[in-house]
Amino acid sequence: MDWKPNRHSHLTIQEQIVDWIKSRIEQGDWSVGTKIPTQRQLAMEFNVNRSTVQLAIDELKADGFLESKMGSGVYVANNSWNALLNRSQPNWQQHIESSIHKPNYHTIQLINEYEQMDQIIRLGTGELSPELLPTKQIEQSLKKISLDSKEIGYSSPQGSGKLRRILCNYLKKRGIQTNPENILIVSGALQALQLIAVGLLEEGSIVFQELPSYLNSVHPFQSSGMQMISISRDKHLADTLRTLKRNRQSLFYCVPTLHNPTGYNWSIEERKYFYNVCKELNIPIIEDDVYHELLFESPPPAIKSFDISGQVLYIGSVSKTLSPGLRIGWVVAPTPVIRRLADIKMQTDYGSSAFSQEIVAHGISSGLYEKHLIKLRKQLKTRASFVEEILEQRFKKIATWKKSEGGFYIWLRFHKPVVNKALFLKLIKKNVLINPGYIYETRDLHHIRLSYAYASFEELNEGLNILLELIQQ
Amino acid sequence: MDWKPNRHSHLTIQEQIVDWIKSRIEQGDWSVGTKIPTQRQLAMEFNVNRSTVQLAIDELKADGFLESKMGSGVYVANNSWNALLNRSQPNWQQHIESSIHKPNYHTIQLINEYEQMDQIIRLGTGELSPELLPTKQIEQSLKKISLDSKEIGYSSPQGSGKLRRILCNYLKKRGIQTNPENILIVSGALQALQLIAVGLLEEGSIVFQELPSYLNSVHPFQSSGMQMISISRDKHLADTLRTLKRNRQSLFYCVPTLHNPTGYNWSIEERKYFYNVCKELNIPIIEDDVYHELLFESPPPAIKSFDISGQVLYIGSVSKTLSPGLRIGWVVAPTPVIRRLADIKMQTDYGSSAFSQEIVAHGISSGLYEKHLIKLRKQLKTRASFVEEILEQRFKKIATWKKSEGGFYIWLRFHKPVVNKALFLKLIKKNVLINPGYIYETRDLHHIRLSYAYASFEELNEGLNILLELIQQ
Repeated sequence: MDWKPNRHSHLTIQEQIVDWIKSRIEQGDWSVGTKIPTQRQLAMEFNVNRSTVQLAIDELKADGFLESKMGSGVYVANNSWNALLNRSQPNWQQHIESSIHKPNYHTIQLINEYEQMDQIIRLGTGELSPELLPTKQIEQSLKKISLDSKEIGYSSPQGSGKLRRILCNYLKKRGIQTNPENILIVSGALQALQLIAVGLLEEGSIVFQELPSYLNSVHPFQSSGMQMISISRDKHLADTLRTLKRNRQSLFYCVPTLHNPTGYNWSIEERKYFYNVCKELNIPIIEDDVYHELLFESPPPAIKSFDISGQVLYIGSVSKTLSPGLRIGWVVAPTPVIRRLADIKMQTDYGSSAFSQEIVAHGISSGLYEKHLIKLRKQLKTRASFVEEILEQRFKKIATWKKSEGGFYIWLRFHKPVVNKALFLKLIKKNVLINPGYIYETRDLHHIRLSYAYASFEELNEGLNILLELIQQ
Repeated sequence: MDWKPNRHSHLTIQEQIVDWIKSRIEQGDWSVGTKIPTQRQLAMEFNVNRSTVQLAIDELKADGFLESKMGSGVYVANNSWNALLNRSQPNWQQHIESSIHKPNYHTIQLINEYEQMDQIIRLGTGELSPELLPTKQIEQSLKKISLDSKEIGYSSPQGSGKLRRILCNYLKKRGIQTNPENILIVSGALQALQLIAVGLLEEGSIVFQELPSYLNSVHPFQSSGMQMISISRDKHLADTLRTLKRNRQSLFYCVPTLHNPTGYNWSIEERKYFYNVCKELNIPIIEDDVYHELLFESPPPAIKSFDISGQVLYIGSVSKTLSPGLRIGWVVAPTPVIRRLADIKMQTDYGSSAFSQEIVAHGISSGLYEKHLIKLRKQLKTRASFVEEILEQRFKKIATWKKSEGGFYIWLRFHKPVVNKALFLKLIKKNVLINPGYIYETRDLHHIRLSYAYASFEELNEGLNILLELIQQ
C-alpha cells in the first residue's frame, strides 16, 4: 500500500480513508470476502491514529461495505456491491480459477513474496548475493557500450547476431561446435523450457526427469498438459524408458552438471551411457547447463559435446553467474528446432532485451566475464566451506550432506522427516526463508536445498541457528 | 551460413566442404528431404570455385548422403542416415507439427525474416526508423545510471518497484489513478496478452475484437484455445454481444486510440458507450493503448480513466515510442488480476530485464522521455505528410485513405482486391516489404498497412513507386 491521507485536503482524514477503502472495493482490488488489514496495520500504514481508522471502518460497516466476523476480523461484505449502486464487476477470482496455466505452489508464491523483504534471511535462494554480482564492472561496461540504432529496434527472431557469434566462440570451450543459426537467445533458461513445451511436444507427451527435480518447482510442461515421469538412471534405464515411453512423444530433462537442487555431478561415463540410451530410443534430451561455470574444478564435458545426432537441446544462461536481472539465456539445437522456437518467441514477446544482449556480448567478448568467474568461484568456495563448517559443528547428529563441488547448493538431508510446510511457515515467522525439499519432490520431507550463495556470513550463521533450534523443538 | 573453409587447414577445401555438409546432416540441420542450396550459392557463400563445390557434392552423392532430382536440385538423401552408420535422429519436423502453439502465418514469418535484411524497403513495419530512436540520449543515460546490486538480481514478481512508482505518476497524465501494486511490468504488450490468455480465461472462452485486428497477426489467444469473434461497434452492440456471449467467459480486445492497423480513433462518446455496454454485460475489456502518445493532437481519455468497476485491463509500452529493444510494457488492473499474471510471469521468464526497467525509469523520471515525444510527434507528422503527398499525386485513382491523425500507419484501401499473397511475394523480389491487410483480416484483399515510420524518405518514395508499378501491371 502506497497511499497516505493528505493532511492539506479539504476532506477530513476519516473521509479520505473511507473513500480510499471504497475505491479498493470498487476497483476490484478488495473483492467480496476479502479480509481487510487490521485497524492497527492500517493506522501504521496511513500514519494516523487508530481511533480515526476505527471511525472510518464503522462508517463503512454502517453503509454495508464491510462486515465483522466475530473474533476473525473485518471483511468486504457480500452486499458491498449493492451498496455501490449495484454496479457490476467481473468476477476475477472465477476467471483465475478456471484458466489454463497452473498457479505456483503456495510455498513458492510465499518464497517469491518473502524474497523481496529486506529483513529476511534467505537460506535457499537460487541466486547470487548482491555482493557477488559484478555490479561495478557492469556499470563501467554501460559507459563503454556504444549503441547501434538498428540493434535497439525489434530483434531478429533468433536474437542479436553479434551475441550469437560471440556465443559460438564461447561454447567451443564447452566442447560444443555450433553456428549462429543454431542458437536462439531467450529470456533465461526457464523461457527456453516454456518454448520447448508449447513448440515441440504434443499434449500428453512424456517429460522424463530425475527426482528430485527443479522442474517440479516450476510448471512449464505441466501447464501444457505434459505428463511428468520421474525415473532413476540405473543399469535398467533403457528398459525402463522403453516400457514407459511406448509410442508416445517424449523428452528427457536433465541437469548433469551441478544438478538443481542437489548439486551433484554425473561422471563422463554416466553422461555417455545416458546419451547412448536416449539416442537408441530416440528420446531427445534437454541438457540444462546453467551452473557448469561454477564448478570448483573444471567441469566434465557437456552431453551436447558428443551429440552427433541432433538429439540434445542445450540450455545455457548468465543468470547464475553474471546477473539474473539481465534475463539472458540461450538454446543450442538443430536448425528446424531453433526456427520453431524463434517463431513462437516472436509471437510471445518479440525477442529479449537488446540492452541486456548488448551487455552480455560486451562482457563475454571483453574477457570481463571470464575474469569475474575466476573470482566468483573462489568466493563461492569460501562460502561453501563456511557453511560446511557450521554443519559439521552443529548438524552432524541430525543430518547428512555431501561436500559441495561447486555452484550454490548443499542438499541437506535430515534423518527425520521434519521438513514440512509447518516448519517452512514457522521459519518465515522467524524471518528465515528455506527452499524445502518437497517443492522438488512432493513426498520428500527430509531435505532442504541449502544455498550458501545469497545470505551474508552472519546471516548464514544466524539462519542456520534458528533452523536448528526449530527442528530440535 | 557463417562458415567458410579455412585455407590454412591441413584438409583440402573440398574435404572441408564435404565434412561441413555431413555435419549439417548429422546434426539434423539439413534433415532428410531438405533441398540444399545450389552450387552457385554455396560457391558464393564459401568464397570458392564452383568446380570445388561440385566435386564435394559429387563425393557426397557417391557416398549416399545426397541425391539429385532431375531438374529440381540436390536433396538430402533418404538413406543418408544409413550412410551415417544408421544413427538414429529425432524427427523434429514431426515434433513441431504435432505441438501446441500455432505457427505464425507464412507471410508474417517472411516479414520477420526479411525485416532483418539491409537492402529491403520496409513499407509496413510497426517500428520506428532507427533515426527516430533517441539512441544518443539512451547512450547518455546509460552513463548516468548507477546500478543497485539488489535491483539486478531476480526481480520482484510485479517488476521494479521504482519503475512502478514512476509509472503511477506518469499514468495520471492519462487520467488513470492507480497504485504500484496494481501494475505489472511485462516484456512488451504482446507478453501481456499472452499472460492474460493463459491466466484469466478458460479454454473455449470468447475473445471479441473489431475487424481488422492486430490480434489476427499474432496468436496469443488462438494458441490457448480461445474463440475469436469479430464484431462491429454499432448501436446493436449490446444485443450482439449478449447473443454471442451466452454464458461463456469472454473479453473484449480493443485499440481505441490509434488503432492498429487502421490508425483510427474512437470518440469520447464511443468510448463511454462501449465501456457501459461491456460493464452491463460483465465483459472485461483489454485496452491496448501503446500508441496514444503518438497522436498529433492530444489523445481522448483512455477507457481505463473512467473504469470504476475494475473492468478494464490497461496495457501500455515504450516499444512504439522509446525503443522496442527495451522490451518493456505494463498492465494496470485490479490486484487479484495483477497477482495472477505476476505469478505466471514468474513461472515463464522470472521477470523482465532489470536493465531495461532501469533505463525506462530513468527516461520517464528525468523528463527525457517527454522531451523526446514532442520531437518524435513532429517528425512523424512530417513523414505522414510526405507519404500523403505521394498518395495524393500517384494513388488517387486506384486507392483511398484517411489523413493520418498520428502514430505510424495509413490504412490504404485499393478499389480492386489486388493485395494478395502473389503481390506480397512479387514485392519481396523487388526488395519491398508490405504488411498486407489479409494478416489482420483473412479475407481482406483491398488494404495494406502503410507505415511512414520506418523507411527513409527516399525509400518511401521508391517503395511506393514499385508498389504502384506492380499493382498497375
